[in-house]
Amino acid sequence: MVVADGLGGLPMKPGGETELEAAATPNMDALVTDNICGLSTPILPGITPGSGPGHVALFGYDPLDYQIGRGVLEALGSDFLLGPNDVAIRGNFCTVDQEGNVVDRRAGRISTSVCAQLIDKMRRIRLDKVELFLQPGREHRFAVILRSFMGLGGDVEDTDPQATGVPPLRPAPRNAASQRTAEIVEEFIARAAEVLKDEHPANMILLRGFGRRPRIPTMQEIYGLTPVAIAVYPMYRGMARLVGMDVVPKVAHLDQQVERLRENWDRFDFFFLHFKYTDSTGEDGKFDEKVKRIEELDARIPAIMETRPDVLIVTGDHSTPARMHEHSWHPVPVLLAADLCRPDLATKFGERACLTGGLGHMEARYLLPTALAYAGRLQKFGA
Amino acid sequence: MVVADGLGGLPMKPGGETELEAAATPNMDALVTDNICGLSTPILPGITPGSGPGHVALFGYDPLDYQIGRGVLEALGSDFLLGPNDVAIRGNFCTVDQEGNVVDRRAGRISTSVCAQLIDKMRRIRLDKVELFLQPGREHRFAVILRSFMGLGGDVEDTDPQATGVPPLRPAPRNAASQRTAEIVEEFIARAAEVLKDEHPANMILLRGFGRRPRIPTMQEIYGLTPVAIAVYPMYRGMARLVGMDVVPKVAHLDQQVERLRENWDRFDFFFLHFKYTDSTGEDGKFDEKVKRIEELDARIPAIMETRPDVLIVTGDHSTPARMHEHSWHPVPVLLAADLCRPDLATKFGERACLTGGLGHMEARYLLPTALAYAGRLQKFGA
Repeated sequence: MVVADGLGGLPMKPGGETELEAAATPNMDALVTDNICGLSTPILPGITPGSGPGHVALFGYDPLDYQIGRGVLEALGSDFLLGPNDVAIRGNFCTVDQEGNVVDRRAGRISTSVCAQLIDKMRRIRLDKVELFLQPGREHRFAVILRSFMGLGGDVEDTDPQATGVPPLRPAPRNAASQRTAEIVEEFIARAAEVLKDEHPANMILLRGFGRRPRIPTMQEIYGLTPVAIAVYPMYRGMARLVGMDVVPKVAHLDQQVERLRENWDRFDFFFLHFKYTDSTGEDGKFDEKVKRIEELDARIPAIMETRPDVLIVTGDHSTPARMHEHSWHPVPVLLAADLCRPDLATKFGERACLTGGLGHMEARYLLPTALAYAGRLQKFGA
Repeated sequence: MVVADGLGGLPMKPGGETELEAAATPNMDALVTDNICGLSTPILPGITPGSGPGHVALFGYDPLDYQIGRGVLEALGSDFLLGPNDVAIRGNFCTVDQEGNVVDRRAGRISTSVCAQLIDKMRRIRLDKVELFLQPGREHRFAVILRSFMGLGGDVEDTDPQATGVPPLRPAPRNAASQRTAEIVEEFIARAAEVLKDEHPANMILLRGFGRRPRIPTMQEIYGLTPVAIAVYPMYRGMARLVGMDVVPKVAHLDQQVERLRENWDRFDFFFLHFKYTDSTGEDGKFDEKVKRIEELDARIPAIMETRPDVLIVTGDHSTPARMHEHSWHPVPVLLAADLCRPDLATKFGERACLTGGLGHMEARYLLPTALAYAGRLQKFGA
């Protein structure tokens, strides 16, 4: 399963082509011609997914059943190995005035290197009976992880007031199991404020998206697969671990990813290959760059096909039209190549062509089971 | 949201066109060309909806979760303002013989004016501790509403035996909360029989579809909308009220509806414009008349578009093919016009063209959320 993040797009102008339609993709076009394609609805019609639910669906789960909090995602994105009892929290550096009111919720978007320095300073904080991990992120963002054998609850209200001119909120517990967590967090915030008091502009922190890692049955348990992730970005490796995937150690670029795929071919029977740059170019609004990234991916299709997969899926976790500079709700093109595909009407990999594809419109969570069917891995249902 | 009731159709003969395909609809065709279309499944494949569930789905609810009883619909259809504690019942005048057995369940389909006269006579009935409202309907039909502060249950069995040669059934309560209701209804039936005993053919009544108005969370609560209905027929205004819509006072025809739409443009952010005649001509089996009604609607599209809506949807609550003279289960054409529509393959508004539309096949209940996405009114799901 090759996930070109944010693959779906839009024309920049009425009457134009989408990024995928504009790209020269002779290899994927040939696969579509001989196999099937269609459109995937990541969550439900009209719903724009974040990266978490978009991938949970592609891994074969109902994304409404397994929701991943912001704190957990931030921790996974820093390559932190989240334990089953850890509480993860997303942090922002912010600026408060002398009265303690928030004047900038993002501390002027301090640089990533300043963020790392401040996190280093905060690492001297020790909390009673709780192990504290701090992971710097991009700009003003970081992750806080609390580890304890007391069974800390993860249901605590955000301290981010989502407004300026007011003080940060107190971390209020949402249930009895999270009472102790809230107390620990309050202590941590006080200590952090102490450490940061002479800094500028990042003299305070805001916390949100408290949560524990969701208990998700693994892909082995549900589908009997031995899956592995080959991803450049840590967040996607982290999400893969959440569903029980093995993870290929750090890879830097697409050629290396394909190389790892080929090297590991005999060790696993499901490969998740994540390609980030179709999303990031979309978020930057760079139509031509996104087109080039799609062409870059297309050029690796022959090398991928040399492994002779039973089934190849190429799709995205959501659309990221360059025109919109962000994720969108538009359905995502999918191609599925396998033996036993029934002929359809499409001869090109693109949004319009996919309207005539044999997969039709499908919820993303059904793609994996469909692939397993083509791989001969599913039993008949009923007699 | 323009609802052309019963919009979907069928050719009268093999090889022919549907009503919508046969109609000259240059304005809707232009919208389809520049935007997207598709087919809506009102409830589930193969299910023919009544007007109630068809509209409940278009208003963004799962029609299986919120079912509206026949009595409630009949009351709404008479423009009766149903209160939260009212029990509504659908009534039929019928004919019974000297032994009290039903010989005609519809009393020879008496005229609407005779029905109104009989209801006037029955209005002299007074019941103990219960306020009684009687609303004449078409032909032999009427509505009975019981209002009380005792909290009457609405679960009472029909008295209509659905057969002739047998007496009406007793109104049996289905639960303890409806025991008192059943007693009151029994008293009402006895008094009605007394009033009608010398009438012919309408000398008795049958009651069915007992129920209270369902508790439906409003469109404000669920979608944050400030919605309004512009409908000529009272039943559609009544259903709109059930989901929390404001209702434009009586309007008589389509031009007036469009006028009200324009006058109220700044006061609301969701407009439900209901056009009845595509359904009634279909029910009468008048193909050419239905075609003309579709063309009449198409001619108003430019005036509607002058309001510059963020999103326009034109669809139906179900199909009513003239060939069948009744509602059907066939999917319903939909067009959606908005900024950010992705190009599809359709250039005409018609059932066949909609097969190649960008909306694909969609359950009707997802149309409103999809429209909200295009209007920029939804948040991202997950991080």
